[in-house]
Amino acid sequence: MDVARTVEELGDARRVLPGPVGFVPTMGALHRGHVSLVEAARADCASVIASIFVNPTQFGPTEDLARYPRPELQDLAMLEAAGVSLAFLPAVDVMYPEGNATRVRVGGIAERLEGASRPGHFDGVATIVTKLFNLVQPDRAYFGRKDAQQLAVIRQMVRDLDQPVDIVGCPTVRDEDGLALSSRNVYLSAAERAQALSLSRGLRRAAAVYADGVRDATSLRQFVEDEVRAQPLANIDYVSIADATTLEELAGPITGPALLSLAVRFGTTRLIDNVTLGE
Amino acid sequence: MDVARTVEELGDARRVLPGPVGFVPTMGALHRGHVSLVEAARADCASVIASIFVNPTQFGPTEDLARYPRPELQDLAMLEAAGVSLAFLPAVDVMYPEGNATRVRVGGIAERLEGASRPGHFDGVATIVTKLFNLVQPDRAYFGRKDAQQLAVIRQMVRDLDQPVDIVGCPTVRDEDGLALSSRNVYLSAAERAQALSLSRGLRRAAAVYADGVRDATSLRQFVEDEVRAQPLANIDYVSIADATTLEELAGPITGPALLSLAVRFGTTRLIDNVTLGE
Repeated sequence: MDVARTVEELGDARRVLPGPVGFVPTMGALHRGHVSLVEAARADCASVIASIFVNPTQFGPTEDLARYPRPELQDLAMLEAAGVSLAFLPAVDVMYPEGNATRVRVGGIAERLEGASRPGHFDGVATIVTKLFNLVQPDRAYFGRKDAQQLAVIRQMVRDLDQPVDIVGCPTVRDEDGLALSSRNVYLSAAERAQALSLSRGLRRAAAVYADGVRDATSLRQFVEDEVRAQPLANIDYVSIADATTLEELAGPITGPALLSLAVRFGTTRLIDNVTLGE
Repeated sequence: MDVARTVEELGDARRVLPGPVGFVPTMGALHRGHVSLVEAARADCASVIASIFVNPTQFGPTEDLARYPRPELQDLAMLEAAGVSLAFLPAVDVMYPEGNATRVRVGGIAERLEGASRPGHFDGVATIVTKLFNLVQPDRAYFGRKDAQQLAVIRQMVRDLDQPVDIVGCPTVRDEDGLALSSRNVYLSAAERAQALSLSRGLRRAAAVYADGVRDATSLRQFVEDEVRAQPLANIDYVSIADATTLEELAGPITGPALLSLAVRFGTTRLIDNVTLGE
């Protein structure tokens, strides 16, 4: 596996890779969810490029940028073991040299849910993903469905800006107890982690209720809220049932595919999870 | 010359063009200035693609979008005569299908001068140029220095977003009487046109005064203002002397390259022109 840390190194290594090229952008602190993205890319593509970059522009001023985990050697070993051809690990000033001032803003879909809770977050995501696409020039890029709104925002951006890359969404990977894998799970205390299982449990049970024929959005949302609210350490940021394409919040009976999603804080740790109903 | 009107037609025609590919984006109503861009591209590149698209997102609500001239057959003949390989003429809903919501915003440099007078203008420019770059995938793109700030904004955007295209700035082309060629010159009455010569005359004389050793920004700005203000039909939008790179307004003695630029209205017609001092 080659490792590039500058734009020039990336360009030189990229040029000689056989295509099609798959791309897995990450913020590092890799887990089996990331590995599953690399595996999906390997199944489709002749070469896989993965990036590790903790992107400052997608963190709010009170968020966990400074303490975000950065186990670089372990991450590189995981990417190599997963069959990545080229890892791109730029420093912050490689991606954002002094004087940089351009941002990509996705409207509508990016303003709801995570966008409402984390102002500027998706501007940062859209900008860094655009930059990485321009540098890496992948044929396909792979994103996890755990970040369902991020995936929807990136699909919209690619469509709106005519970016020449196919976006592939991959299933959420969970621990055996159901907790969605996240680089932020390491922040959880044992008690928080036990109570955090209410997220996936609530979503799973709501999906079962939906499968039994319940279609009322308010009832399903309430069902999940009750499950999470029963945990004394949980602070709900939002629980949402929204149109799966537009992410507009639903009321009354659900008639098409719907994204049931939530964001919950345990202490200073913010977790998200989701399930799609009626796919 | 091939003509493409859809993304699919463009992609099919683009794929078989020999490279390097030069790109000249235009809003049509072509004149010798545009032709000079095509000629510069032909000198550098194996193939030249030109686009004609009157981009609605760069016009303000009170601007001249509806009446902007669209002499399509004449434009196509000019592009063919100039040696363009492929002309791209998308309809508005090809570039902006319903639901599109993503914009590219260049900060700093794009907020001054034209950006201050025309809010949103450069967001529209940056967005359409990004889309066209993604669709056309040129090696080099050619822009006129008559739109000096547009050129600077695009250079900044390309650098900030790592867009894989070289930007080439080309000299302003003028009529024999000095008026900078513009698709908007056709709006001018004979009297307005005669008085509009004060723009290039003021800039030319200020450049001569600068060459004679005058360096005070305020004096040079005043010199141009006086020249234009002597015309009864002229309404000055701005006269600016700014750092040629950052476009920050200068006061006191000029020490580096400076952009002397202006925007002036004659009736409902808004003209711009500029000269760079100390290149």
